[in-house]
Amino acid sequence: MVVLGIDPGSLNTGYGVVRSSGGALTSLACGVIRLQPVQSHAERIGRIYRELDKIIEAYRPQRAVLETVFLCRNVQSALKLGQVRGAVIALAMNRGLELHEYAPREVKLAMTGRGSATKEQVSFMVTRMLGFETPPEPYDITDALGIALCDLSRAGNPDSLSRAGNGARSGKGGWSSFVRDSPHMVIR
Amino acid sequence: MVVLGIDPGSLNTGYGVVRSSGGALTSLACGVIRLQPVQSHAERIGRIYRELDKIIEAYRPQRAVLETVFLCRNVQSALKLGQVRGAVIALAMNRGLELHEYAPREVKLAMTGRGSATKEQVSFMVTRMLGFETPPEPYDITDALGIALCDLSRAGNPDSLSRAGNGARSGKGGWSSFVRDSPHMVIR
Repeated sequence: MVVLGIDPGSLNTGYGVVRSSGGALTSLACGVIRLQPVQSHAERIGRIYRELDKIIEAYRPQRAVLETVFLCRNVQSALKLGQVRGAVIALAMNRGLELHEYAPREVKLAMTGRGSATKEQVSFMVTRMLGFETPPEPYDITDALGIALCDLSRAGNPDSLSRAGNGARSGKGGWSSFVRDSPHMVIR
Repeated sequence: MVVLGIDPGSLNTGYGVVRSSGGALTSLACGVIRLQPVQSHAERIGRIYRELDKIIEAYRPQRAVLETVFLCRNVQSALKLGQVRGAVIALAMNRGLELHEYAPREVKLAMTGRGSATKEQVSFMVTRMLGFETPPEPYDITDALGIALCDLSRAGNPDSLSRAGNGARSGKGGWSSFVRDSPHMVIR
């Protein structure tokens, strides 16, 4: 099972492709698509679509996963964020991916055992679970990887994420099952 | 010049394809994409993308035109509308169309000479200008056609829309230059 987690934003969109195989979790690719404020909003939306399309072409995830949005500063920022999300959703549908959404609280809970965890705590767990030497930065990336890992934990993969979570919370091992190859990380 | 006007909504998305050639305006296609409330929001977004893609494939517009959004009931409705718009914008970018946006007031002004015109007045003018026997319904369609006509009036086509507008406002002819062939209208 290969899952693409996406953390869309109107300037930076984080993504992470995670494979779960036989209880081992591997980050196949992760990064952030940085958009230029000088570009028009439409150009940015086109770019996000194309960049994520390349990633789907390369890694063939079966599922795309987003966080649900509850809060926005105002109607205009909701509209902008909605437009970026719409491009991502259209892409997932065009590519025939299953699309899933989780509440931010659910992702944090799955990753750290606490629904009110900070981005730093999520980053810490993502880094350990996927065997990165140092935490991928910025948080857009670890957020996206966390969303993918949350989905894998919910999608009937008890050998992967849930065991990792338990191991981490109780301080007992369990990490040896995670593949520590060199993940491909790109800042686009 | 062929222009695709789009009036996106989270349930009904109106569209209209208008050709301007030698001062004559023709509706090549118009209709409304009706989405099912039983479908997930993601499925609806995928459907809008696919349906509009077929229309672009068939009529090859050079430009896609939307209205800007100023008002939304609340953040959640802005997010939903934004997602539909994002799919439309991504499609226009993927197809290499120029994308333009006009304020609703600008469209009404271009169509009727009054920025605060009603949808009925816009519908009346669209119907006359494009030679429909009866007004296309619902208003999603005439709104979309009005957006396309507004763009044509702004895009250096003084022989088409601006002359029509003047003729209509002053009560002087000018209508004979509009092609009255049978426009293709579809409720999808």
